[in-house]
Amino acid sequence: MNRPTEPPVRDALRRIQEAVGPKGWTDAPDAMEPYLVEQRGLYHGRAQMVVRPESTAQVAAVVKICAEAGIPVVPQGGNTGLAGGGVPSARGDAIVLSLGRMNRIRALDPLNDTITVEAGVVLQRIQEAAAEADRLFPLSLGAEGSCMIGGNLSTNAGGTGVLRYGNARALVLGLEVVLPDGRIWDGLRGLRKDNTGYDLKQLFIGAEGTLGVITAAVLRLFPRPRDVVTAMVAVRDVHAAVELLSLLRGGTGESVTGFELMTRMGMESAARHIEGVADPFDKAYGYYVLIECTSAHGPGPLRGAVEGVLEDALTEGLVLDAVFADSRARARQLWYIREVLPEAQKFEGGSIKHDVAVPVSRVADFIADANAAVEAAMPGVRPFAFGHVGDGNIHYNLSQPPGMDKDAFLAEWQRLNRVVHDVVVRKYKGSISAEHGIGLVRRTDLGHYKSEVELDLMRKVKAALDPKGLMNPGKIL
Amino acid sequence: MNRPTEPPVRDALRRIQEAVGPKGWTDAPDAMEPYLVEQRGLYHGRAQMVVRPESTAQVAAVVKICAEAGIPVVPQGGNTGLAGGGVPSARGDAIVLSLGRMNRIRALDPLNDTITVEAGVVLQRIQEAAAEADRLFPLSLGAEGSCMIGGNLSTNAGGTGVLRYGNARALVLGLEVVLPDGRIWDGLRGLRKDNTGYDLKQLFIGAEGTLGVITAAVLRLFPRPRDVVTAMVAVRDVHAAVELLSLLRGGTGESVTGFELMTRMGMESAARHIEGVADPFDKAYGYYVLIECTSAHGPGPLRGAVEGVLEDALTEGLVLDAVFADSRARARQLWYIREVLPEAQKFEGGSIKHDVAVPVSRVADFIADANAAVEAAMPGVRPFAFGHVGDGNIHYNLSQPPGMDKDAFLAEWQRLNRVVHDVVVRKYKGSISAEHGIGLVRRTDLGHYKSEVELDLMRKVKAALDPKGLMNPGKIL
Repeated sequence: MNRPTEPPVRDALRRIQEAVGPKGWTDAPDAMEPYLVEQRGLYHGRAQMVVRPESTAQVAAVVKICAEAGIPVVPQGGNTGLAGGGVPSARGDAIVLSLGRMNRIRALDPLNDTITVEAGVVLQRIQEAAAEADRLFPLSLGAEGSCMIGGNLSTNAGGTGVLRYGNARALVLGLEVVLPDGRIWDGLRGLRKDNTGYDLKQLFIGAEGTLGVITAAVLRLFPRPRDVVTAMVAVRDVHAAVELLSLLRGGTGESVTGFELMTRMGMESAARHIEGVADPFDKAYGYYVLIECTSAHGPGPLRGAVEGVLEDALTEGLVLDAVFADSRARARQLWYIREVLPEAQKFEGGSIKHDVAVPVSRVADFIADANAAVEAAMPGVRPFAFGHVGDGNIHYNLSQPPGMDKDAFLAEWQRLNRVVHDVVVRKYKGSISAEHGIGLVRRTDLGHYKSEVELDLMRKVKAALDPKGLMNPGKIL
Repeated sequence: MNRPTEPPVRDALRRIQEAVGPKGWTDAPDAMEPYLVEQRGLYHGRAQMVVRPESTAQVAAVVKICAEAGIPVVPQGGNTGLAGGGVPSARGDAIVLSLGRMNRIRALDPLNDTITVEAGVVLQRIQEAAAEADRLFPLSLGAEGSCMIGGNLSTNAGGTGVLRYGNARALVLGLEVVLPDGRIWDGLRGLRKDNTGYDLKQLFIGAEGTLGVITAAVLRLFPRPRDVVTAMVAVRDVHAAVELLSLLRGGTGESVTGFELMTRMGMESAARHIEGVADPFDKAYGYYVLIECTSAHGPGPLRGAVEGVLEDALTEGLVLDAVFADSRARARQLWYIREVLPEAQKFEGGSIKHDVAVPVSRVADFIADANAAVEAAMPGVRPFAFGHVGDGNIHYNLSQPPGMDKDAFLAEWQRLNRVVHDVVVRKYKGSISAEHGIGLVRRTDLGHYKSEVELDLMRKVKAALDPKGLMNPGKIL
């Protein structure tokens, strides 16, 4: 029904409401609020409307209307991102396109080791569906109980399984995407080999919704591990940790699924401040590694292989002490020490965070250089590094100098970011956002650190796919 | 030195010669010949000149001159491709840009499990360099003694290790690329996590040189297997083969590195016609699978695990018989049977070939449907299917009906291609080029089978990166 006297945007919003039906939209301020705020409260945006389509056809209809009327579209999954990529700007001209109602598992094919899911399926549901079919979906991260797979793919999520199974990108065989003009690209194929032209799905994975809206995906499944060996190991230093990883991979192959670094300060903070955490060693050590190895064989050979490597490493002086988990409960306890580190750090006062990556072989040198650089920039600042050393991804956080005013410390956030990122990029050709993405938080840094050639390529891709610039504007580029 | 009276193209060619020096080019017909012919003689092109730069800077200089003068550029590695992607057209206006002199291994970092190589390094040299450092570079294919890594990456090569290690794309951490305007994109990073904007390297992998020239890459290395279990297994039927794969992955995890299907006709042809091949079984069976499992543990547990799975499968009637290789020599013999199949097929008369993929779970149904379709299209035609069933990639070849004239059979190539590809695409959402790429051979088919949306996206990407259309024109799109 055309109402030519209506302003075009208002008319478009009305047509969107018709397309998705009464359950598919809201513009009530209270109901919109959770969709407008980034989870840590860093960003608070505004929107014309929150639209919640329940099918790909509805997403396509909504995006097409927006394209014609010039309305920006901000796709959103579980809104658990750490870079502000999922919230609208304060301008208020956009709609938030929430994928939460598209939450069907369309198919699970055990013989093809694939699961086909819609964008709004919560990650944990995919893990559970895989487990019910005696398979593993290995993507695992803190927010897995509420984040949605569409967001995981749009941000190329990392997490604890990357060392063995790769980032989210490596888990995708096919995608269904609504393009910026509202057309549907059906690339929902479950093939392990397909060399028929450009691999278009790669464009949309990690693009944070700036090139289109992922509506469904075919994901890879893996054999379920039958045996898990978990150990906490005290190592001589960070370099010894990296050498130990190499020995462990050499001796047990791709069975290494977790290899997480902690410092003495981390262990101490966790043991002192967090209920249920106890230092597993009698003595204090400088650095620790939490090791997890898994195998599809039944219990037996893996434990022996890991022990053999650790004994050799002890003889070589790389390893100083080790504690194996002899039960699932004990393994959970050891993992818990690692998991509470961000929480424990809060007891040390203000925290300035980094999510950086360098080549695995350079982690030790990087930490030494970064320690020196931040000490020079702010004497007394306390590095609180931990993270996925197995894939070179260090959460190189900084705790304030003892006694410093917390707000005064946090006011130095950008200056210290720059000090750390200068070391990461200039000296180690590393990444200033290993797993969290760019979104709003790192957009200025991206312009600062990326080469002009690389920025130009990104802009060309953006302009080619979204010439009107309506898809999640202001994010990444 | 400007010579304004010279025609622009001739002037450009002269400047290219200056840029690469006397060893870096030839226009002598005899010397150019090997660069102009596709290896099977299917295509014979012409070129202004063959240019062989020895550095990234030289590649950039050459491409820049070509961009300014409007000269098409055909990048070429070892010229072993099976789709005609590396040879120039018959127009003769292009230069062939051979990367063969860029053959340095720039770095090997065992602790980062990476090797940095230039585009012209022969694949086998990379495998050898990795082995010397006690690592595995898992890309392996028939042409590995002469194909070059730049071509492998530009075609996203497959081969026998895909089931376990993925296609060439999965082995790349970073790329250095000369763009169509001659600028160098330095994306030569050795990071396992990097979520800083669009993953640009994905654009160039598998693009067959139509978006730029890959000049160097950082590749992933893996632990070297310490134990290999090889077995030839007679299975009840194709469906049983797929179920066996699932059981094997469930029981031994990601240790399955090879899972190759053969038919009775393949086994018979190989044993009858090829020197050194003997059927390993006393009885004739309908279908066979060659299994290879590897482990980073020392010899022992893997063999027992594989035997356990096969015993269960025997009880269930999936497996009818099995022969284990008890020595390396015996393992080589079993692999040899699989490797000679293309050769053996030649003794059956004319052969019409396909390189298709379907979901692993649909391989049996696909083969049954395709068999029916080709029999309807040409009574008496003999399917000669074999290949990487573990990743759904079947070389579904057809041997001529006995007694038919070979040329008359081969004249039906395109008609039978269409019959098979119709089944692949329409019924199984499969791929008409699983590992060989599009090049010239499948360009018409691409236009026929891809959706208009997908073709439009590819054209947009091409126009964005190569607006003048000078990079390997006429390939893919």
